[in-house]
Amino acid sequence: MPLRVGVAGLGTVGVGTLELLAENADLIAERCGGRIEVTAVSSRERDRDRGVDIAGMTWHDDAVALAGDPDVDAVVELIGGADGVALALSRAALAGGKPLVTANKAMLAHHGAELAAAAEASGAVLGYEAAVAGGIPIIKALREGLAANRVRRVFGILNGTCNYILSAMRDGGRDFAEVLAEAQELGFAEADPSFDIDGVDTAHKLAILASVAFGCPIDFDAIHIEGIRHITALDIDYAAELGFDIKLLGVAALTDRGLEQRVHPCMISKDSPIAHVDGSFNAVYVDVDFAGRTMFVGRGAGGGPTASAVVADLIDIARGHHLPVFGKPTDALQPIAAATMESHKGAYYIRLMVIDRPGVMADITAALRDEQVSVEALLQHGRNPGDVVPVVLTTHETDEAAMRRTLARIAELDSVVEAPRMIRIEKL
Amino acid sequence: MPLRVGVAGLGTVGVGTLELLAENADLIAERCGGRIEVTAVSSRERDRDRGVDIAGMTWHDDAVALAGDPDVDAVVELIGGADGVALALSRAALAGGKPLVTANKAMLAHHGAELAAAAEASGAVLGYEAAVAGGIPIIKALREGLAANRVRRVFGILNGTCNYILSAMRDGGRDFAEVLAEAQELGFAEADPSFDIDGVDTAHKLAILASVAFGCPIDFDAIHIEGIRHITALDIDYAAELGFDIKLLGVAALTDRGLEQRVHPCMISKDSPIAHVDGSFNAVYVDVDFAGRTMFVGRGAGGGPTASAVVADLIDIARGHHLPVFGKPTDALQPIAAATMESHKGAYYIRLMVIDRPGVMADITAALRDEQVSVEALLQHGRNPGDVVPVVLTTHETDEAAMRRTLARIAELDSVVEAPRMIRIEKL
Repeated sequence: MPLRVGVAGLGTVGVGTLELLAENADLIAERCGGRIEVTAVSSRERDRDRGVDIAGMTWHDDAVALAGDPDVDAVVELIGGADGVALALSRAALAGGKPLVTANKAMLAHHGAELAAAAEASGAVLGYEAAVAGGIPIIKALREGLAANRVRRVFGILNGTCNYILSAMRDGGRDFAEVLAEAQELGFAEADPSFDIDGVDTAHKLAILASVAFGCPIDFDAIHIEGIRHITALDIDYAAELGFDIKLLGVAALTDRGLEQRVHPCMISKDSPIAHVDGSFNAVYVDVDFAGRTMFVGRGAGGGPTASAVVADLIDIARGHHLPVFGKPTDALQPIAAATMESHKGAYYIRLMVIDRPGVMADITAALRDEQVSVEALLQHGRNPGDVVPVVLTTHETDEAAMRRTLARIAELDSVVEAPRMIRIEKL
Repeated sequence: MPLRVGVAGLGTVGVGTLELLAENADLIAERCGGRIEVTAVSSRERDRDRGVDIAGMTWHDDAVALAGDPDVDAVVELIGGADGVALALSRAALAGGKPLVTANKAMLAHHGAELAAAAEASGAVLGYEAAVAGGIPIIKALREGLAANRVRRVFGILNGTCNYILSAMRDGGRDFAEVLAEAQELGFAEADPSFDIDGVDTAHKLAILASVAFGCPIDFDAIHIEGIRHITALDIDYAAELGFDIKLLGVAALTDRGLEQRVHPCMISKDSPIAHVDGSFNAVYVDVDFAGRTMFVGRGAGGGPTASAVVADLIDIARGHHLPVFGKPTDALQPIAAATMESHKGAYYIRLMVIDRPGVMADITAALRDEQVSVEALLQHGRNPGDVVPVVLTTHETDEAAMRRTLARIAELDSVVEAPRMIRIEKL
């Protein structure tokens, strides 16, 4: 008996899924003991040429109707958007007891709890490997491969657009705006890039990872989110000089102050493998009690990698593999108090633009001393009395609240002519 | 109903497994819907203090008796060795229809086909996540997470001892023998290190990976195996200068000449994440048709990481998750003709020790030209007429057979005073 699949949304990922299922049909049948066939599709424009043959498939103008199609055993939702048709289809599929496979991180970040409960109530599988880090089977790694472990921290490069921009800025010594414009021209960034570059997309994925990793309900609103708009070529150069690379990370960490969930640019050591994950690649780093540290790298987006994840979920369904959505029954998911960003403890990179004149360093170091922020390294290249020069320093571990007070005080100094730049250092 | 487990072998991994199952018992029970309890153990010395409480467990002097213990639902084999008691116990467990979890790569490399057939015949699960790359859930990634894909190449740093030695040689500019002796003192290398440093352990793991990746029967004897004894500090320095790092890799690649399976030191680009996988860490790199390139990094050995993999398999068993041993039914595994090493195509690093005198470079380049080996880079530092100096070159892609003929001819030159060193360059 084949597994009959209905695919809603025939964009890049939908077409990739159809191509994959056609091209590797025999291989997949051997691996899961039965064929996986697309019997129905839905998309906005019926007659567009997509380069795949949908002639033998039932067409539904209304995507939600896929859930009720008697020739559809499993529904694949690739429409996107947190609400609207995607959510209506997902609810309909799960309510009807049909397995749902989705790549929709925004929907899961906002409605994951409701959808997981619906899946549990009807006994349907809810697969979402494709929602996080595309071609990397990270949900499977967390729910199964590392399931024997207690997770301490999970973090990752979860947005290929940001990683492409930061890599290109570093490699070309170029500024953010210029690289963003180029990325938009090349199709690596959206016309409205704010979801990517302001960290929202990373936060959607982090919310899902944190739930699976820590066995807690998704709590998107608890995430501290900063994007990469304020990263400059100058900071990237200083990072390199200090032995760091700058990446936008989503980090979820269990601390004695509660669960930290944060998205922001990070300085990470250039000696680590993750610092060499460049361009549109994603990486997820998992730190657990018995297995120690593991890292998973792969393409985070695109038709092929995301289709690979979609079909992996379909293969699990065909094989009869059924797990609790977030790794535990929903009523066993325990909320974990959110640690505030002010209580974060870590090391910091600070860049100040100061007028080079006597006394300025004394004022800065006095502010640091008064808040007991301990300096690890301090860089000032050359001197240029009377001119504006950058002063860069890194700190030992300190409280974010103390750091913020220090920066507020430094910002008020007459000699400091721009708002101080602060980038957190993530220890590996 | 708990899953009752019998553990044979209470060395580092066996004790780690008992510790893990005790420490994370509640977490695991929540994740798999039932408890996993160790009810019986077997090891060589009953009364040794291992730091774990085995008081409530049945002791078996004869490990094979675990398979027949009516209070054991699943058997964990951590004895080691390709044959002997480990094999006898494994056969007994599978013949009796009991799930078997093993970390024994040597046994699987040599008897995997027989054991898989036995598992299939009795309907028992055979789990071996722990046999390859310790804490990295790579078997799950290949059999499930990437199951939608056709694999083109899989390779990895699969032996932590070799990686530790090569990293330490590079970081300290030290020679092989010195670092090996230190590793032995620190317990990172065995008293008899040949299985590790001569590449046999890597080959055992590669044989398993290749079977899962390519859906073919394990063919250990087809693997070309070279170790790291001949790597020198000098070659590591030249590698760095050329932008490479040297790693011992196990590589399995599907080529138009058949399936290549090879274990040898490789030059890999320092810009790649895998070049930064250092010390005792392992990494597996998988190149597939739809997901593209993925990489998995983690601790390759040790009690905690290996126990994590053992218990992940037990969790799968407790969850009722049952897959074909090598990802397909055994009768669907198709042998793939082995590509000979002579037919390998790749780039090469060559180091010659030559007497610095007129005409020597002309002789060397003539030999290369006659075999149509095209040189990419050539390094000779300084001159020292009449003395022995290293000459290093890298080639463009060439046939291994041509490379070997060239080196044989160069070796016969009067000016060449040592056997030429050749290290293959692995393109990522």
